[in-house]
Amino acid sequence: MPTAHSASRSVIAETIAIGSELLVGGRSDSNSLFITEALGRLGIEVRFKSIVGDDLADMVQVLKTAVSRAGVVIMTGGLGPTVDDCTREAVVKATGRRLARRKAAFEGMAARLAQWGRTPNKGQLRQAMIPAGATVLANPVGSAPGFAIEWKGATIVALPGVPCEMEAMMADSVIPLLAEQLARVMKVRPQPVIRQVFHTWGLPEADVDAKLHGLIPKNTAIDLGLLASPMGVLVSLTTKSGGARPVSDEVLSSLAQAVRVRLSDCLFAEGRETMEEVVGRLLAAQRLTVAVAESCTGGLIGHRLTQVPGSSAYVDRGAITYSNQSKSEMLGVPEALIAKHGAVSAEVAAAMAKGIRERAGVSVGLSVTGIAGPGGATATKPVGLVYIGLNGGSGAAITKEFRFHGDRSIIKQRSSQAALNLLRLWLIDRNRR
Amino acid sequence: MPTAHSASRSVIAETIAIGSELLVGGRSDSNSLFITEALGRLGIEVRFKSIVGDDLADMVQVLKTAVSRAGVVIMTGGLGPTVDDCTREAVVKATGRRLARRKAAFEGMAARLAQWGRTPNKGQLRQAMIPAGATVLANPVGSAPGFAIEWKGATIVALPGVPCEMEAMMADSVIPLLAEQLARVMKVRPQPVIRQVFHTWGLPEADVDAKLHGLIPKNTAIDLGLLASPMGVLVSLTTKSGGARPVSDEVLSSLAQAVRVRLSDCLFAEGRETMEEVVGRLLAAQRLTVAVAESCTGGLIGHRLTQVPGSSAYVDRGAITYSNQSKSEMLGVPEALIAKHGAVSAEVAAAMAKGIRERAGVSVGLSVTGIAGPGGATATKPVGLVYIGLNGGSGAAITKEFRFHGDRSIIKQRSSQAALNLLRLWLIDRNRR
Repeated sequence: MPTAHSASRSVIAETIAIGSELLVGGRSDSNSLFITEALGRLGIEVRFKSIVGDDLADMVQVLKTAVSRAGVVIMTGGLGPTVDDCTREAVVKATGRRLARRKAAFEGMAARLAQWGRTPNKGQLRQAMIPAGATVLANPVGSAPGFAIEWKGATIVALPGVPCEMEAMMADSVIPLLAEQLARVMKVRPQPVIRQVFHTWGLPEADVDAKLHGLIPKNTAIDLGLLASPMGVLVSLTTKSGGARPVSDEVLSSLAQAVRVRLSDCLFAEGRETMEEVVGRLLAAQRLTVAVAESCTGGLIGHRLTQVPGSSAYVDRGAITYSNQSKSEMLGVPEALIAKHGAVSAEVAAAMAKGIRERAGVSVGLSVTGIAGPGGATATKPVGLVYIGLNGGSGAAITKEFRFHGDRSIIKQRSSQAALNLLRLWLIDRNRR
Repeated sequence: MPTAHSASRSVIAETIAIGSELLVGGRSDSNSLFITEALGRLGIEVRFKSIVGDDLADMVQVLKTAVSRAGVVIMTGGLGPTVDDCTREAVVKATGRRLARRKAAFEGMAARLAQWGRTPNKGQLRQAMIPAGATVLANPVGSAPGFAIEWKGATIVALPGVPCEMEAMMADSVIPLLAEQLARVMKVRPQPVIRQVFHTWGLPEADVDAKLHGLIPKNTAIDLGLLASPMGVLVSLTTKSGGARPVSDEVLSSLAQAVRVRLSDCLFAEGRETMEEVVGRLLAAQRLTVAVAESCTGGLIGHRLTQVPGSSAYVDRGAITYSNQSKSEMLGVPEALIAKHGAVSAEVAAAMAKGIRERAGVSVGLSVTGIAGPGGATATKPVGLVYIGLNGGSGAAITKEFRFHGDRSIIKQRSSQAALNLLRLWLIDRNRR
């Protein structure tokens, strides 16, 4: 085990999420994704992630393992005021230091509590106990201070598990500290780990994979990643850290451009942008308004469109028409049309889109009708059969048929994505004319 | 390091999720939660979780660490047909075995591919290579077989990362194999790890904590967990494994009953049941129908109600009334009422609930109007101000005011939860009368 900062280890990181709830419970460890991105910008690559419960011996074991393989170890959680919170104890047990009440830690915490009109209780006093030799990291949001300590050539950082506290402390303290340290031990500033993300819809993973075949030249330090979900296939280009085989900006951007060309017919967004944000951006740019008529999605499309701040500028209304009667009453779909073709049909989808557009007086009406399952299938109409309708005022409605697989929730998600994508394509096409 | 199965190590497990996308991407490792629960029923406790990229050396390192501390190691991912998939190679490198084409693995895979009208390609042939001495685990869903191998007193299991394949193989192969093994090495069948979950709404975490103060007697092998989210505070009782200090069923059920009593005014569900399932169950039992009128939630309440299979029996329709005009046109809310009190007011919430109930002809109308932010606040009406209305036909509408904190998405979530909870309480109260 190296006993001083070695350049190569300085760019390898491990996150340790602490908490028995993380082992057994339903919460995902979203903190580690934030840390991965923040460290990546410095050129430090998170290569290992560990999750361990509130067990002192287990935590010591995990911490020792982390220090043996990573130069930067970021622990989150276990800094609270209760006896379960034993990150402080684990660090002193692993490193052989002792805990000491630290003025900076105590004063910061007392000041924070005073703002809330409280004085530190016994548990909170424990939070001011920091391993000897550690740097106290102020918590600008909550009461628990964090700390950073050097041990066996690694930097161990302990932060609270509350996301907003962790994020603030990463930005205020940890990133500057690690940047300064890297500048000290590395002759050349390590290349940032850059991740470019492309969101596709409409092709299975194998087809997206085939389109990208041979894209990355051999021995290029870039990982091509594919990740399928009900919302489509995510494609990522991630540079590797360490600066061993650095990738120039030109190489990366020409690869990104090649991805765009190869995926042009299924790429709907890049980076953090969502389908509903893309649609919202296009609607706002063209000063158009939209109204939705949803049957099997039950409100999901309206919910997604209104997740975007400022969406009230272009979302007028929606009708969740679950019963046949509501399709007639709210949208003016003729009862005879439903009787003839069935509620799940291209004809009814078209009538729903027309009805909501006319009643709302908006630029475009978007509709969905389908069988989300598990019940409701007939001999000719299986679970997953979905019709999307779009009426933009001129000419007949556009309708599209889909046959989705998956459970009720997945079919709803895919239906909403298909509907928003149809609207996206219509908006792009309309803008071109 | 023990070289034979020791009883205590046999009930300690570690999960290893493999895939660079899991390190950098947005997907949470939901597989490990499934595995934790399945192993817990056998009395095997997942004490460590690791995530590592598709890097052979890193995988070997993580696997060796896991075997040093856990008697059961479940790896997921890295069994696919591409060169990135190197779980097989990592296991042989760590254990010093070699890979061999195995008839059982090849035939299972070929049969699966034949069903899809395909023959194995070069990459898929790699999937039939299994470490010597390992037991092949059939994949009843996909093409990649898994395997289980004994090494240094631990059982290493390798499964695909695709959730439905992993879940089927856990049930079909892994659980029976581990149960048989436990029966062999343990004199007494280990106590299952039991986790009882209680969902609360309406109280901050600190208040829930205070209500449960002193609940668990000292030296009782039960963990009390609290987990706050925008949807409320989750409380869990989890027994510890190993049988060292076994908890009797009576103790656990009396503690669960004590939790119910102490949390009676905020407990809305237990176990896997969601708020929308509880509401749906109550509506169905009373043969009532519901319609929703949503402003700031934008369809989220309709979406949640219709997530429940069979919800078409009681969900009639919904109106997403984002614009003021739509509130008047779709719900009959008088324009003068909006002009006088503002769209975000108790009066408008009441009129919305009444309007949707009457127009839909349902038993109960539920409405939400509020300011989800970040824009839209006024001097007297801050972001997070939300009114819920409920009209059950007899008497005036019930309205409730809330002042939520958080971003747009959190305010929408909390608003939907508050609305559904109001409906839940009304349904319970109605049933008592």
